[in-house]
Amino acid sequence: MKKYILVFCLFLLPLWGGRVGFLYSVEKVESPSLNLTAYFDVQEGRPVYWLLHKGDTVIRPSYLGLALRGEHSRGEFNDYKDESNSPQDGLSTLSDSGLSSLSVSGLLNGFVMTGSERFIHDDWWTPVWGEERRIHNSYHEMLITLRQPAKDRYIQIQFRLYDDGLGFRYIFPQQKNLNYFVIEEEQTEFALPGDITAYWIPGDYDTQEYEYTRSKLSEIRAIQEKTNKANLSTTTFSTTGVQTPVLFKVQGDKVQSTKDHTLWLNIHEAALVNYSCMHLNLDDKSFIFRSHLTPDIDGTKGHIQTDAVSPWRVVMVGETAKDILASRIVLNLNEPCKIEDTSWIKPMKYVGVWWEMIAGMRDWSYTWDFPSIHIGHTDYSKAKPHGRHGATTENVKRYIDFAAKYGFDGVLVEGWNIGWEDWFGNEKDFVYDFVTPYPDFDVEVIHDYAKSKGVKMIMHHETSGAIRNYERWLDTAYQFMNKYEYPAVKSGYVGNLLPKGERHYSQWMNNHYLYCVEKAAKYRIMVNAHEAVRPTGLCRTWPNLIGNESAQGTEYQAFGGSAPNHTTMLPFTRLIGGPMDYTPGIFENDIHKLNPNSNSWCNTTLCNQLSLYVTLYSPLQMAADLPDNYERFLDAFQFIVDVPVEWDEPYYLEAEPYEYVTIARKQKDTDAWFVGSTNGYDPRTAFIDLSFLPDGRKYTATIYADAKDAHYKSNPQAYTITTKTVTSKTKLKLFTAAGGGCAIKIVPKQ
Amino acid sequence: MKKYILVFCLFLLPLWGGRVGFLYSVEKVESPSLNLTAYFDVQEGRPVYWLLHKGDTVIRPSYLGLALRGEHSRGEFNDYKDESNSPQDGLSTLSDSGLSSLSVSGLLNGFVMTGSERFIHDDWWTPVWGEERRIHNSYHEMLITLRQPAKDRYIQIQFRLYDDGLGFRYIFPQQKNLNYFVIEEEQTEFALPGDITAYWIPGDYDTQEYEYTRSKLSEIRAIQEKTNKANLSTTTFSTTGVQTPVLFKVQGDKVQSTKDHTLWLNIHEAALVNYSCMHLNLDDKSFIFRSHLTPDIDGTKGHIQTDAVSPWRVVMVGETAKDILASRIVLNLNEPCKIEDTSWIKPMKYVGVWWEMIAGMRDWSYTWDFPSIHIGHTDYSKAKPHGRHGATTENVKRYIDFAAKYGFDGVLVEGWNIGWEDWFGNEKDFVYDFVTPYPDFDVEVIHDYAKSKGVKMIMHHETSGAIRNYERWLDTAYQFMNKYEYPAVKSGYVGNLLPKGERHYSQWMNNHYLYCVEKAAKYRIMVNAHEAVRPTGLCRTWPNLIGNESAQGTEYQAFGGSAPNHTTMLPFTRLIGGPMDYTPGIFENDIHKLNPNSNSWCNTTLCNQLSLYVTLYSPLQMAADLPDNYERFLDAFQFIVDVPVEWDEPYYLEAEPYEYVTIARKQKDTDAWFVGSTNGYDPRTAFIDLSFLPDGRKYTATIYADAKDAHYKSNPQAYTITTKTVTSKTKLKLFTAAGGGCAIKIVPKQ
Repeated sequence: MKKYILVFCLFLLPLWGGRVGFLYSVEKVESPSLNLTAYFDVQEGRPVYWLLHKGDTVIRPSYLGLALRGEHSRGEFNDYKDESNSPQDGLSTLSDSGLSSLSVSGLLNGFVMTGSERFIHDDWWTPVWGEERRIHNSYHEMLITLRQPAKDRYIQIQFRLYDDGLGFRYIFPQQKNLNYFVIEEEQTEFALPGDITAYWIPGDYDTQEYEYTRSKLSEIRAIQEKTNKANLSTTTFSTTGVQTPVLFKVQGDKVQSTKDHTLWLNIHEAALVNYSCMHLNLDDKSFIFRSHLTPDIDGTKGHIQTDAVSPWRVVMVGETAKDILASRIVLNLNEPCKIEDTSWIKPMKYVGVWWEMIAGMRDWSYTWDFPSIHIGHTDYSKAKPHGRHGATTENVKRYIDFAAKYGFDGVLVEGWNIGWEDWFGNEKDFVYDFVTPYPDFDVEVIHDYAKSKGVKMIMHHETSGAIRNYERWLDTAYQFMNKYEYPAVKSGYVGNLLPKGERHYSQWMNNHYLYCVEKAAKYRIMVNAHEAVRPTGLCRTWPNLIGNESAQGTEYQAFGGSAPNHTTMLPFTRLIGGPMDYTPGIFENDIHKLNPNSNSWCNTTLCNQLSLYVTLYSPLQMAADLPDNYERFLDAFQFIVDVPVEWDEPYYLEAEPYEYVTIARKQKDTDAWFVGSTNGYDPRTAFIDLSFLPDGRKYTATIYADAKDAHYKSNPQAYTITTKTVTSKTKLKLFTAAGGGCAIKIVPKQ
Repeated sequence: MKKYILVFCLFLLPLWGGRVGFLYSVEKVESPSLNLTAYFDVQEGRPVYWLLHKGDTVIRPSYLGLALRGEHSRGEFNDYKDESNSPQDGLSTLSDSGLSSLSVSGLLNGFVMTGSERFIHDDWWTPVWGEERRIHNSYHEMLITLRQPAKDRYIQIQFRLYDDGLGFRYIFPQQKNLNYFVIEEEQTEFALPGDITAYWIPGDYDTQEYEYTRSKLSEIRAIQEKTNKANLSTTTFSTTGVQTPVLFKVQGDKVQSTKDHTLWLNIHEAALVNYSCMHLNLDDKSFIFRSHLTPDIDGTKGHIQTDAVSPWRVVMVGETAKDILASRIVLNLNEPCKIEDTSWIKPMKYVGVWWEMIAGMRDWSYTWDFPSIHIGHTDYSKAKPHGRHGATTENVKRYIDFAAKYGFDGVLVEGWNIGWEDWFGNEKDFVYDFVTPYPDFDVEVIHDYAKSKGVKMIMHHETSGAIRNYERWLDTAYQFMNKYEYPAVKSGYVGNLLPKGERHYSQWMNNHYLYCVEKAAKYRIMVNAHEAVRPTGLCRTWPNLIGNESAQGTEYQAFGGSAPNHTTMLPFTRLIGGPMDYTPGIFENDIHKLNPNSNSWCNTTLCNQLSLYVTLYSPLQMAADLPDNYERFLDAFQFIVDVPVEWDEPYYLEAEPYEYVTIARKQKDTDAWFVGSTNGYDPRTAFIDLSFLPDGRKYTATIYADAKDAHYKSNPQAYTITTKTVTSKTKLKLFTAAGGGCAIKIVPKQ
């Protein structure tokens, strides 16, 4: 049942011209349980909002608005490149921002409030897949109408206040004097309550593949100046730039509303559609983050045609870090599912011909015969194979056998199609056709074989960033998938984009990613897009968007190794927007054993890898290691075999980002529970309270735990497997090593 | 029968290192009739060619080569922006060009010749459509292999010498050290024999819609500085830049090989495929033109993957201007037809709902109700029509009736599909879907009605330059055309392109145009692309490319009026590369009569308009004026009714570019001849020798001629129609007025 009630509607006549302030009280809205209060005001013609948690300020008064191309007042638009040099103690001042109330610049100032409406919404909805069966969507809305008399036009700002956070967005109604405009920069502010702790990765137009830093806001600049990770894929824009979702811990005097004087915040965006991806740039004197959109080819930040809305800007607020995990505000702010029949969308657990290439043991390519490849002209049939090709029919059959034996749903194969010999770094347009297999990959045979074994094949479309080429081939490629019954595709966007100068997270590209997802839905295809823009809850609307990468995944364990605590951050940051195809399950830490030229080391224990199947929620979970490596540890592998990808309910048991996270989940439609505890640098004892189990029954817990001497570096494969009878009263204490973890399967006692 | 004979093959060992010159004679090749001789040499490591006509130098020694991105020698690559300031008296000197023989820069220098081969080719081929039934392709080829020892790589330069000109191109073979490269600039030179007369339009990355200037080379700069025609569609790059095809007249002492001491040259390119369109930039001290390619988004001039070839650079040479008209070198240098079954490709004469919009009498759009249009969301069904919409079912039926009555093959309708209300100037991406008609355009009814009348409908796809959107819709749009049996599409690329920064003639866009043509061929659709790159003979390979605009067309007569002699230039310039959809046939000169807000005037006489159906060859010919205007002059209109679009043979009777042109053509498979004489500013008497008629028979000539007092401005509709008995001995003398002309139909006497 959906309630959508107009509670209160006030239209203020703009009697006071451009000047408002003391003639009426500020607008406010409270969350359903009254824990959060958001305020809105127009001050000197500029929209301002702030946010309180039970009296504690979590967002100080912060300006809203957008600078538009061609709408600067004379010399009065300050480029944000200079912003971090302007010391500020609260609201950025008018002189700092270069705006006076006498001249109107873009959609930044000269506003009067002409309307303020209130709505209440409270209902539940059922996701096609997700962490739980039903999601509660309850908010109070405040819809502000702002008129710019000097331009004879208006916009709206829509605030939705949930108990777990604030969402707001700009609405640009269609009207005579506001039809088409170009965003120079969105200037949304998030004025944080002081020099708080942030968990962040650098702002970047092209990649999110970074490790997280925990630091004070005031330390961000120096850290970024010191640790420049520039490579072919990175495009940073400021040493105080960060990406969303970005997590914050507020502690101390400023927090009176919680016992431990701690609050958790997370800033992200929801429903990124036909708009540029938002980064945040910090003024590290005033601790104000300002939105910084990804530029288009010509440096502008997005083309808008009214009617239009911006994505939602989201400030999540939690009294504990577990509250951040439990929040569904990002999903709730997205539109309901647009796919009518979703019966074909099915979570999958899969293996694949992938890790052997990532580790450098095999190649995506087939031959060294050609200086370069011309799709459609290069004749592979006469080429001499170099013998390192991974995607051979024979090898794929081995994976199909393995998948069938252990009950995996699918097999991914990368490097199956021609073109990989020079796929990267050449600004090459026609790099793949997405339908022509290598001579040693027999698509018919593999299709028939997989089908006979009850296994689905997962398609792979690397685009190499050649966007026009991919769109030209998209229908043909999807039709090919339909013909050979591939239910899902992993797509990739490695390298610089064509058209040149385009960025991975620009409006143009975001439009492309969604185009692929929408078209895929027509073909009943699920999409798992790597190197695409980070998710913003669009999987609610398009649940065939079954996964994304958009963070540093397991592959980095073969590229030098990830930080042991990397996965303790992901649930609080990257996963806020949607599931990640993290590809866990590496049992053999020593990549040198796979590839003599590599000295990479997987910086986790084996039990840590097991825990990720529970702590990193995804409807798409890979068992990424080689079958041989699993068969060496079949007892531990059993957990991966058992762990499902469909769930009824989550239980967030322990959470300290950067340190550890412990989550339990109930398997969908089954009396079985799975627990994962993922640990960071410091050995600790996980405290696992099983009170989530139904009372009055006994259960068998199979516990996969780090051995006492386990360590991610020196002894990662030391684990114990024990079984224990447990009840809802049981409180387990389990050792988790440095870079370690534990995993538990719980089923009713027979 | 095709002859392709290896006559001579010489491989020179690079014994002399980087220095060659006096140790052997220069390479040369002569045309089949020996009238032209081309020379090639490597001087100080740089490739040089020159061209003689019977001993007269037509191209002085000129450098060849390409500057590559990232391959500049230290400070030694001069940007061509400075070139026009370097006075030069022959070959550009090493110091001027900044190249020394000691350092290797791109593919410019450091070459030694290691091979020189000769081939002879002589055959005939049959075009699907064209000015004649069979085309003679006879040339002598010289294939030069050039090695760059310092880079351990090689290229080839392929010279084909015809009796009517020289074609040469760069060949970039696939090899270890030359796989991918980016062109910084092609530096092909055309050193002209002095300050000769040029017939030119300004170089421009985005439009060819200019009027021609006849001037000395030395005058180009001052004229361009004076007459800047900058508007939204123009992108000039240099005041000495010109476009190809560019015509030259060489006169005086330098020409000893012809009686009147005159030679005609024309520089163009052939087979522009996956390469940037070439402009020419003049050094007006040395009279050397250098190639200037259209830049890509990032300013580079093209991405090459070997194997690759450049387009052919073509220097046409004629002893008379008629020889330029008769030359088929551009078609001959293109690849043979790639479409197997061409039975569906048929020349068409057509009318259309077009001129009424161009003249401002009606609109492409339907309503003024919406501030802007969202395709797929804007609900036209409830919109109030503004009453000016041209593409209504009723109006279209009127054109179908007219076409059927007078035997036209097709009816073009512009403004039939939704989106025209804000189609232009908004950097709008999703501007059309190409399949949704306006509420008052009933595509089913129109299809059935046209079919019942034996008339074909011609589709219109305006893209507004939104390239990605058009490619996304292309299959759907073509399928829609197949469903409703549209055999041809007029496509348009008005305005700035998306992706922003892309140019109409860049490699990326040239790739797009050909993509549309190739895909159209799969759907058996003919393409007539407006605002696309100018043709380079690709219609030989893809004869479904039935037309292009790529020059100032008739529409300019409603945009202020064209120069009265504009059409006397087109056959010698624009039409060299392929047919133009010029859309002649305007009978009502006073646009004010159609649109009270216009004061435009069509600067030609009515007979001039008739002549264009013969002088401007095209397989697609429109009768562009309103049916009402034709019915006011039915006797003159009879010529347009009678004139065909398929021919057996042309006869070039008189030619003085900028002044007049007189052409006769034999109708295909019929004993009927049509003559057109198009005149420029000065009244004159056309001398029409009918000796092309078979001897010994009498013919009836119907002569449409300007009245004695006709004048394009004061009395354009004054004409006489007379019939006369003629034979092959007849020599007609016909008055043609200022901006006038005459047209004749000749059939055997009954």
